[in-house]
Amino acid sequence: MKPVMLDGTIVAKEIKENLKDRIAVLSERNITPCLATILVGDNPSSKTYVKMKGNACEKLGINSISIHLPAETNTEQLIRKIDELNSDPSVHGILLQHPVPDHIDERQAFEAISIEKDVDGVTSRGYGQTAFGFGNFPSCTPSAILKILNYYNLSIKGKHAVIVGRSPILGKPVSALLLNEDATVTTCHSQTENLQEILKTADIVVGAVGKPRFIKGEWLKEGAVVLDAGYNKGNIGDVDEESCLAVASAITPVPGGVGPVTIATLLEHTVLSAEK
Amino acid sequence: MKPVMLDGTIVAKEIKENLKDRIAVLSERNITPCLATILVGDNPSSKTYVKMKGNACEKLGINSISIHLPAETNTEQLIRKIDELNSDPSVHGILLQHPVPDHIDERQAFEAISIEKDVDGVTSRGYGQTAFGFGNFPSCTPSAILKILNYYNLSIKGKHAVIVGRSPILGKPVSALLLNEDATVTTCHSQTENLQEILKTADIVVGAVGKPRFIKGEWLKEGAVVLDAGYNKGNIGDVDEESCLAVASAITPVPGGVGPVTIATLLEHTVLSAEK
Repeated sequence: MKPVMLDGTIVAKEIKENLKDRIAVLSERNITPCLATILVGDNPSSKTYVKMKGNACEKLGINSISIHLPAETNTEQLIRKIDELNSDPSVHGILLQHPVPDHIDERQAFEAISIEKDVDGVTSRGYGQTAFGFGNFPSCTPSAILKILNYYNLSIKGKHAVIVGRSPILGKPVSALLLNEDATVTTCHSQTENLQEILKTADIVVGAVGKPRFIKGEWLKEGAVVLDAGYNKGNIGDVDEESCLAVASAITPVPGGVGPVTIATLLEHTVLSAEK
Repeated sequence: MKPVMLDGTIVAKEIKENLKDRIAVLSERNITPCLATILVGDNPSSKTYVKMKGNACEKLGINSISIHLPAETNTEQLIRKIDELNSDPSVHGILLQHPVPDHIDERQAFEAISIEKDVDGVTSRGYGQTAFGFGNFPSCTPSAILKILNYYNLSIKGKHAVIVGRSPILGKPVSALLLNEDATVTTCHSQTENLQEILKTADIVVGAVGKPRFIKGEWLKEGAVVLDAGYNKGNIGDVDEESCLAVASAITPVPGGVGPVTIATLLEHTVLSAEK
């Protein structure tokens, strides 16, 4: 049986339609939601992502401030810029594009973002709130994965979800969100000894490892639901789509799966922040 | 083969010995570490726990302030008391004994504890830091479990750890700590559909479910390492010790396993807080 393609563009469209009304209500109060993005250096993929996010804002009537800092910016300078944005009342959300150049302490920079403006869900404080079930801004890609599962009525409760990857902005928060939705959650990573054996028991598989076409169909259980959160060079996911199509019951394509919903979620968080 | 009994009293003793020197150094600076415990109501087990913690402090030369509030205390009053302790420079650690009476919002009360004094590791902020690998005060029982594994040279890296339970102060942080030590971590709970099947694949099992003698030997893989974080009425753990003794390669007894190390960890955190 051919698997259901979990088209993220439909989900994203619905979220954005919803936002239009909320943005109109804000406009009546003379408030325009505003997202500030910070790009450090000239990584071409990062440039593209930041631009996409900015464009998505503009299209919906959200202000976007795009800050481009030179590659030689140091941690202290970056944090000073973040602090400026923290105290600027016209800015509702701050996104620091990952990754920053190696000489910068990325974690320290992320932590400098105030919890009220952490619409991308990168701070440890935001993560803790998400894991305990009361955060406003869960990390956007994990949140997008939940939205896709809900949109397509795929059940989570009691299912075995296996997450491949444990990064602070992807693997860990998606594990936390699925656990809060009553999945049994296994978090795997580079040190996992028997990954294929574990994947064979998964009802839901999340690729969050950052290795192109890493997860193979042969490793999966018949009927698994596969979510590909990978974004590798050349628009290639973490999932080997070709082999997984033969066994999965549902799968997100790359592009057009998790990606667009991630951006829509970022916009939603920015609007929510403006509403508060 | 008889399993190794993971005697926590030895581990606790070593931690405390170590602390004596650090307390002496603090004393030269005219600092006495101080832990404030708050008990709300008259739950007899809670009374006993708070008393044990207070006694453990006194024995080591740590000041202990024991605050006993009536059962009818409301959330606001409790938070006011916590705020007082937050701003009292002579207090280095605050422990709110769990559980509080039902009419109190326990989460809100926990969150009121300042991160600098959250030596029991109950705030979402502390949890986030722990999960991201840089927290000062991970939740005490999870931290005790790690200490026991390390003391007895039981390897964690690449092993499959299955945690039964997902509470914010036990199941979630022990999952996070083991993940950071490179275990593959599965978090199970009341909604898990195939618990016994999952436990059969576990190299390390943590009972953190709060049901007396819940985990049976028949469910385990031969040679599993079993850690019992349960504290049920009558000093009974979450693990059915009798049946587990037949299959485990190592096991913590109750009492005398995780419990004493938890208390020693609380003291250690209080001293660390005083040092800062």
